[in-house]
Amino acid sequence: MKLIIAIVQNEDSGRLIGELMNDGYSVTKLATTGGFLRAGNTTLLLGVDEEKIEGAMKIIEKICKSRKQIATSPSPMTGGTGVYIPYPIEVTVGGATVFVLNVEDFKKM
Amino acid sequence: MKLIIAIVQNEDSGRLIGELMNDGYSVTKLATTGGFLRAGNTTLLLGVDEEKIEGAMKIIEKICKSRKQIATSPSPMTGGTGVYIPYPIEVTVGGATVFVLNVEDFKKM
Amino acid sequence: MKLIIAIVQNEDSGRLIGELMNDGYSVTKLATTGGFLRAGNTTLLLGVDEEKIEGAMKIIEKICKSRKQIATSPSPMTGGTGVYIPYPIEVTVGGATVFVLNVEDFKKM
Ligand code: NI
Ligand code: NI
Ligand code: NI
Repeated sequence: MKLIIAIVQNEDSGRLIGELMNDGYSVTKLATTGGFLRAGNTTLLLGVDEEKIEGAMKIIEKICKSRKQIATSPSPMTGGTGVYIPYPIEVTVGGATVFVLNVEDFKKM
Repeated sequence: MKLIIAIVQNEDSGRLIGELMNDGYSVTKLATTGGFLRAGNTTLLLGVDEEKIEGAMKIIEKICKSRKQIATSPSPMTGGTGVYIPYPIEVTVGGATVFVLNVEDFKKM
Repeated sequence: MKLIIAIVQNEDSGRLIGELMNDGYSVTKLATTGGFLRAGNTTLLLGVDEEKIEGAMKIIEKICKSRKQIATSPSPMTGGTGVYIPYPIEVTVGGATVFVLNVEDFKKM
Protein backbone atom coordinates (compact mmCIF):
# COMPACT_ATOMS: atom_id res chain seq x y z
CA MET A 1 0.00 0.00 0.00
CA LYS A 2 1.19 3.50 -0.83
CA LEU A 3 -0.06 6.94 0.18
CA ILE A 4 -0.32 9.52 -2.58
CA ILE A 5 -0.28 13.13 -1.43
CA ALA A 6 -1.37 15.29 -4.36
CA ILE A 7 -1.34 19.08 -4.20
CA VAL A 8 -3.50 20.45 -6.99
CA GLN A 9 -5.25 23.66 -7.97
CA ASN A 10 -8.62 24.31 -6.32
CA GLU A 11 -10.33 24.66 -9.67
CA ASP A 12 -9.15 21.19 -10.76
CA SER A 13 -9.92 19.41 -7.51
CA GLY A 14 -13.63 18.77 -8.04
CA ARG A 15 -13.13 17.12 -11.42
CA LEU A 16 -10.12 15.17 -10.14
CA ILE A 17 -11.96 13.78 -7.11
CA GLY A 18 -14.88 12.81 -9.35
CA GLU A 19 -12.68 10.92 -11.81
CA LEU A 20 -10.70 9.19 -9.08
CA MET A 21 -13.85 8.04 -7.28
CA ASN A 22 -15.40 6.87 -10.55
CA ASP A 23 -12.38 4.62 -10.98
CA GLY A 24 -12.70 3.24 -7.46
CA TYR A 25 -10.10 5.30 -5.61
CA SER A 26 -10.79 6.56 -2.11
CA VAL A 27 -9.86 10.21 -1.74
CA THR A 28 -9.61 12.49 1.28
CA LYS A 29 -9.54 16.21 0.68
CA LEU A 30 -7.61 18.39 3.09
CA ALA A 31 -8.23 22.11 3.23
CA THR A 32 -5.13 23.86 1.98
CA THR A 33 -4.03 27.41 1.49
CA GLY A 34 -1.14 28.82 -0.47
CA GLY A 35 2.03 26.98 -1.19
CA PHE A 36 3.46 24.97 -4.03
CA LEU A 37 2.40 26.47 -7.36
CA ARG A 38 0.07 29.41 -6.87
CA ALA A 39 -2.24 30.20 -3.93
CA GLY A 40 -5.51 28.31 -3.85
CA ASN A 41 -4.38 24.72 -3.62
CA THR A 42 -6.10 21.59 -2.41
CA THR A 43 -4.25 18.65 -0.89
CA LEU A 44 -5.62 15.17 -1.50
CA LEU A 45 -4.71 11.93 0.26
CA LEU A 46 -5.15 8.63 -1.56
CA GLY A 47 -4.39 5.21 -0.15
CA VAL A 48 -3.53 3.14 -3.22
CA ASP A 49 -2.34 -0.43 -3.83
CA GLU A 50 0.94 -0.69 -5.75
CA GLU A 51 -0.72 -1.92 -8.90
CA LYS A 52 -3.12 1.01 -9.00
CA ILE A 53 -0.54 3.79 -8.55
CA GLU A 54 0.09 4.22 -12.23
CA GLY A 55 -3.62 4.54 -12.93
CA ALA A 56 -4.00 7.22 -10.27
CA MET A 57 -1.00 9.13 -11.62
CA LYS A 58 -2.47 9.10 -15.12
CA ILE A 59 -5.77 10.51 -13.88
CA ILE A 60 -4.01 13.25 -11.92
CA GLU A 61 -1.91 14.13 -14.95
CA LYS A 62 -4.91 14.13 -17.31
CA ILE A 63 -6.96 16.47 -15.15
CA CYS A 64 -4.36 18.65 -13.49
CA LYS A 65 -1.38 18.95 -15.83
CA SER A 66 -0.06 22.48 -16.10
CA ARG A 67 -1.41 24.02 -19.31
CA LYS A 68 -1.71 27.31 -21.17
CA GLN A 69 -4.99 29.16 -21.36
CA ILE A 70 -6.06 32.31 -23.15
CA ALA A 71 -7.52 34.91 -20.83
CA THR A 72 -8.35 38.55 -21.39
CA SER A 73 -6.14 41.16 -19.83
CA PRO A 74 -7.12 41.56 -16.18
CA SER A 75 -6.57 45.31 -15.79
CA PRO A 76 -7.22 48.34 -18.04
CA MET A 77 -4.50 49.38 -20.47
CA THR A 78 -4.86 53.09 -20.85
CA GLY A 79 -3.38 54.04 -24.18
CA GLY A 80 -3.27 57.48 -25.76
CA THR A 81 -6.96 57.33 -26.56
CA GLY A 82 -8.10 56.79 -22.99
CA VAL A 83 -10.13 53.82 -24.22
CA TYR A 84 -9.84 50.46 -22.45
CA ILE A 85 -9.12 47.73 -24.95
CA PRO A 86 -9.08 44.22 -23.46
CA TYR A 87 -6.52 41.97 -25.15
CA PRO A 88 -5.84 38.23 -24.95
CA ILE A 89 -3.02 36.97 -22.76
CA GLU A 90 -1.65 33.48 -22.27
CA VAL A 91 -1.69 32.21 -18.68
CA THR A 92 -0.52 28.94 -17.17
CA VAL A 93 -3.16 27.14 -15.12
CA GLY A 94 -3.35 23.82 -13.30
CA GLY A 95 -0.31 21.88 -12.24
CA ALA A 96 0.15 19.24 -9.57
CA THR A 97 2.83 18.24 -7.08
CA VAL A 98 2.59 14.57 -6.16
CA PHE A 99 4.39 12.63 -3.43
CA VAL A 100 4.22 8.84 -3.14
CA LEU A 101 5.03 7.47 0.32
CA ASN A 102 5.30 3.90 1.52
CA VAL A 103 2.61 2.77 3.97
CA GLU A 104 3.81 0.32 6.63
CA ASP A 105 0.39 -0.53 7.92
CA PHE A 106 -3.11 0.25 6.75
CA LYS A 107 -6.40 -0.46 8.49
CA LYS A 108 -10.02 0.20 7.73
CA MET A 109 -12.19 -0.14 10.81
CA MET B 1 9.03 6.71 15.45
CA LYS B 2 5.96 6.28 13.26
CA LEU B 3 3.39 8.72 11.95
CA ILE B 4 -0.24 7.65 12.19
CA ILE B 5 -2.61 9.41 9.80
CA ALA B 6 -6.16 8.65 10.91
CA ILE B 7 -9.19 9.75 8.92
CA VAL B 8 -12.26 9.59 11.13
CA GLN B 9 -15.79 10.90 11.26
CA ASN B 10 -16.20 14.48 12.52
CA GLU B 11 -18.64 13.35 15.22
CA ASP B 12 -16.09 10.87 16.63
CA SER B 13 -13.09 13.18 16.49
CA GLY B 14 -13.65 15.09 19.73
CA ARG B 15 -13.93 11.94 21.85
CA LEU B 16 -11.01 10.33 20.04
CA ILE B 17 -8.70 13.31 20.58
CA GLY B 18 -9.71 13.42 24.24
CA GLU B 19 -8.95 9.71 24.82
CA LEU B 20 -5.65 9.87 22.95
CA MET B 21 -4.47 12.91 24.89
CA ASN B 22 -5.57 11.31 28.19
CA ASP B 23 -3.26 8.43 27.35
CA GLY B 24 -0.36 10.75 26.57
CA TYR B 25 -0.52 10.86 22.79
CA SER B 26 0.13 14.13 20.94
CA VAL B 27 -2.48 14.74 18.27
CA THR B 28 -2.71 17.29 15.49
CA LYS B 29 -6.07 17.82 13.88
CA LEU B 30 -6.18 18.83 10.23
CA ALA B 31 -9.30 20.35 8.76
CA THR B 32 -10.72 17.90 6.26
CA THR B 33 -13.68 17.80 3.95
CA GLY B 34 -15.22 14.87 2.11
CA GLY B 35 -13.38 11.77 1.13
CA PHE B 36 -12.95 8.29 2.47
CA LEU B 37 -16.17 7.06 4.06
CA ARG B 38 -18.82 9.72 4.04
CA ALA B 39 -18.41 13.52 3.86
CA GLY B 40 -17.53 15.21 7.12
CA ASN B 41 -14.20 13.66 7.99
CA THR B 42 -11.37 14.81 10.20
CA THR B 43 -7.74 13.87 9.60
CA LEU B 44 -5.50 13.42 12.63
CA LEU B 45 -1.70 13.19 12.75
CA LEU B 46 -0.03 11.32 15.62
CA GLY B 47 3.69 10.90 16.08
CA VAL B 48 3.98 7.63 17.99
CA ASP B 49 6.84 5.46 19.20
CA GLU B 50 6.76 1.88 17.92
CA GLU B 51 5.78 0.43 21.26
CA LYS B 52 2.78 2.73 21.57
CA ILE B 53 1.30 2.09 18.10
CA GLU B 54 -0.84 -0.79 19.24
CA GLY B 55 -2.29 1.26 22.07
CA ALA B 56 -3.19 4.08 19.71
CA MET B 57 -4.80 1.68 17.25
CA LYS B 58 -6.93 0.18 20.01
CA ILE B 59 -8.18 3.60 21.07
CA ILE B 60 -9.01 4.54 17.48
CA GLU B 61 -10.86 1.27 17.01
CA LYS B 62 -12.75 1.58 20.29
CA ILE B 63 -14.02 5.08 19.55
CA CYS B 64 -14.37 5.11 15.78
CA LYS B 65 -15.18 1.58 14.65
CA SER B 66 -17.93 1.44 12.06
CA ARG B 67 -21.16 0.47 13.81
CA LYS B 68 -24.90 0.23 13.29
CA GLN B 69 -27.28 2.75 14.80
CA ILE B 70 -31.02 3.00 14.86
CA ALA B 71 -32.32 6.27 13.47
CA THR B 72 -35.81 7.35 12.52
CA SER B 73 -36.64 7.65 8.84
CA PRO B 74 -35.31 10.97 7.56
CA SER B 75 -38.08 11.80 5.08
CA PRO B 76 -41.88 11.43 5.19
CA MET B 77 -43.43 8.18 4.00
CA THR B 78 -46.79 9.13 2.63
CA GLY B 79 -48.98 6.07 2.71
CA GLY B 80 -52.61 5.77 1.75
CA THR B 81 -53.66 7.69 4.84
CA GLY B 82 -51.65 10.80 4.08
CA VAL B 83 -50.23 10.57 7.60
CA TYR B 84 -46.47 10.72 8.19
CA ILE B 85 -45.36 7.75 10.24
CA PRO B 86 -41.69 7.87 11.24
CA TYR B 87 -40.13 4.39 11.36
CA PRO B 88 -36.80 3.12 12.65
CA ILE B 89 -34.01 2.44 10.17
CA GLU B 90 -30.55 1.01 10.70
CA VAL B 91 -27.66 3.24 9.61
CA THR B 92 -23.91 2.69 9.68
CA VAL B 93 -21.94 5.41 11.47
CA GLY B 94 -18.31 5.94 12.39
CA GLY B 95 -15.46 4.17 10.68
CA ALA B 96 -11.80 5.03 10.37
CA THR B 97 -9.08 4.74 7.75
CA VAL B 98 -5.64 4.56 9.31
CA PHE B 99 -2.21 4.77 7.66
CA VAL B 100 1.04 4.08 9.54
CA LEU B 101 4.15 5.61 7.96
CA ASN B 102 7.77 5.31 8.95
CA VAL B 103 9.39 8.50 10.26
CA GLU B 104 13.07 8.92 9.34
CA ASP B 105 13.68 11.86 11.58
CA PHE B 106 11.67 13.56 14.28
CA LYS B 107 12.43 16.78 16.14
CA LYS B 108 10.71 18.81 18.79
CA MET B 109 12.12 22.32 19.00
CA MET C 1 13.54 13.35 -1.89
CA LYS C 2 12.07 13.72 1.59
CA LEU C 3 8.81 15.16 2.86
CA ILE C 4 9.03 17.45 5.87
CA ILE C 5 5.82 17.81 7.86
CA ALA C 6 6.26 20.74 10.24
CA ILE C 7 3.65 21.66 12.83
CA VAL C 8 4.28 25.20 14.04
CA GLN C 9 2.50 27.99 15.84
CA ASN C 10 0.14 30.12 13.74
CA GLU C 11 1.95 33.29 14.73
CA ASP C 12 5.28 31.92 13.45
CA SER C 13 3.95 30.46 10.22
CA GLY C 14 3.94 33.61 8.09
CA ARG C 15 7.58 34.44 8.84
CA LEU C 16 8.59 30.80 8.41
CA ILE C 17 6.92 30.44 5.01
CA GLY C 18 8.53 33.71 3.90
CA GLU C 19 12.03 32.61 4.92
CA LEU C 20 11.64 29.15 3.39
CA MET C 21 10.42 30.56 0.08
CA ASN C 22 13.21 33.15 0.05
CA ASP C 23 15.63 30.26 0.25
CA GLY C 24 13.97 28.42 -2.61
CA TYR C 25 11.85 25.92 -0.72
CA SER C 26 8.33 25.06 -1.89
CA VAL C 27 5.87 25.08 0.98
CA THR C 28 2.26 23.98 1.23
CA LYS C 29 0.26 25.21 4.17
CA LEU C 30 -2.50 23.01 5.52
CA ALA C 31 -5.20 24.48 7.72
CA THR C 32 -4.79 23.00 11.18
CA THR C 33 -6.55 23.30 14.47
CA GLY C 34 -5.42 22.30 17.93
CA GLY C 35 -3.01 19.52 18.64
CA PHE C 36 0.63 19.19 19.40
CA LEU C 37 1.82 22.11 21.52
CA ARG C 38 -0.97 24.60 22.10
CA ALA C 39 -4.09 25.26 20.02
CA GLY C 40 -3.59 27.42 16.96
CA ASN C 41 -1.15 25.38 14.92
CA THR C 42 -0.33 25.36 11.24
CA THR C 43 0.93 22.28 9.42
CA LEU C 44 3.37 22.79 6.56
CA LEU C 45 4.44 20.29 3.89
CA LEU C 46 7.84 20.69 2.23
CA GLY C 47 9.24 18.43 -0.46
CA VAL C 48 13.00 18.70 0.04
CA ASP C 49 16.04 17.07 -1.54
CA GLU C 50 18.30 15.26 0.93
CA GLU C 51 21.03 17.87 0.73
CA LYS C 52 18.64 20.69 1.58
CA ILE C 53 17.04 19.07 4.64
CA GLU C 54 19.55 20.50 7.07
CA GLY C 55 19.02 24.00 5.70
CA ALA C 56 15.26 23.70 6.09
CA MET C 57 15.62 22.40 9.64
CA LYS C 58 17.84 25.36 10.56
CA ILE C 59 15.29 27.84 9.24
CA ILE C 60 12.47 26.13 11.12
CA GLU C 61 14.52 26.15 14.30
CA LYS C 62 15.56 29.79 13.88
CA ILE C 63 12.01 31.04 13.42
CA CYS C 64 9.95 28.64 15.50
CA LYS C 65 12.09 27.45 18.37
CA SER C 66 10.27 27.43 21.68
CA ARG C 67 11.31 30.54 23.61
CA LYS C 68 10.45 32.65 26.66
CA GLN C 69 8.70 35.96 26.31
CA ILE C 70 7.76 38.62 28.80
CA ALA C 71 4.07 39.44 28.75
CA THR C 72 1.97 41.47 31.13
CA SER C 73 -0.39 39.63 33.41
CA PRO C 74 -3.54 38.78 31.48
CA SER C 75 -6.12 39.23 34.22
CA PRO C 76 -6.50 41.77 37.02
CA MET C 77 -4.88 41.05 40.37
CA THR C 78 -7.08 42.68 42.94
CA GLY C 79 -4.96 43.33 45.97
CA GLY C 80 -6.00 45.01 49.18
CA THR C 81 -6.02 48.40 47.49
CA GLY C 82 -8.56 47.44 44.82
CA VAL C 83 -6.15 48.83 42.21
CA TYR C 84 -5.20 46.74 39.17
CA ILE C 85 -1.46 46.56 38.83
CA PRO C 86 -0.27 44.75 35.67
CA TYR C 87 2.93 42.80 36.26
CA PRO C 88 5.34 41.03 33.91
CA ILE C 89 5.09 37.27 33.51
CA GLU C 90 7.26 34.88 31.54
CA VAL C 91 5.45 32.78 28.92
CA THR C 92 6.72 30.14 26.50
CA VAL C 93 5.83 30.79 22.86
CA GLY C 94 6.65 29.13 19.57
CA GLY C 95 7.80 25.56 19.26
CA ALA C 96 7.72 23.15 16.36
CA THR C 97 7.18 19.43 15.83
CA VAL C 98 8.90 18.19 12.69
CA PHE C 99 8.62 14.82 10.93
CA VAL C 100 10.87 13.79 8.04
CA LEU C 101 9.47 11.04 5.81
CA ASN C 102 11.02 9.25 2.87
CA VAL C 103 9.42 9.95 -0.53
CA GLU C 104 9.41 6.98 -2.91
CA ASP C 105 8.30 8.93 -5.92
CA PHE C 106 7.84 12.61 -6.62
CA LYS C 107 6.34 14.27 -9.69
CA LYS C 108 5.65 17.80 -10.75
CA MET C 109 3.18 17.97 -13.61
NI1 NI D 1 1.24 -2.30 -0.33
NI1 NI E 1 11.02 5.04 15.91
NI1 NI F 1 15.57 11.92 -2.79
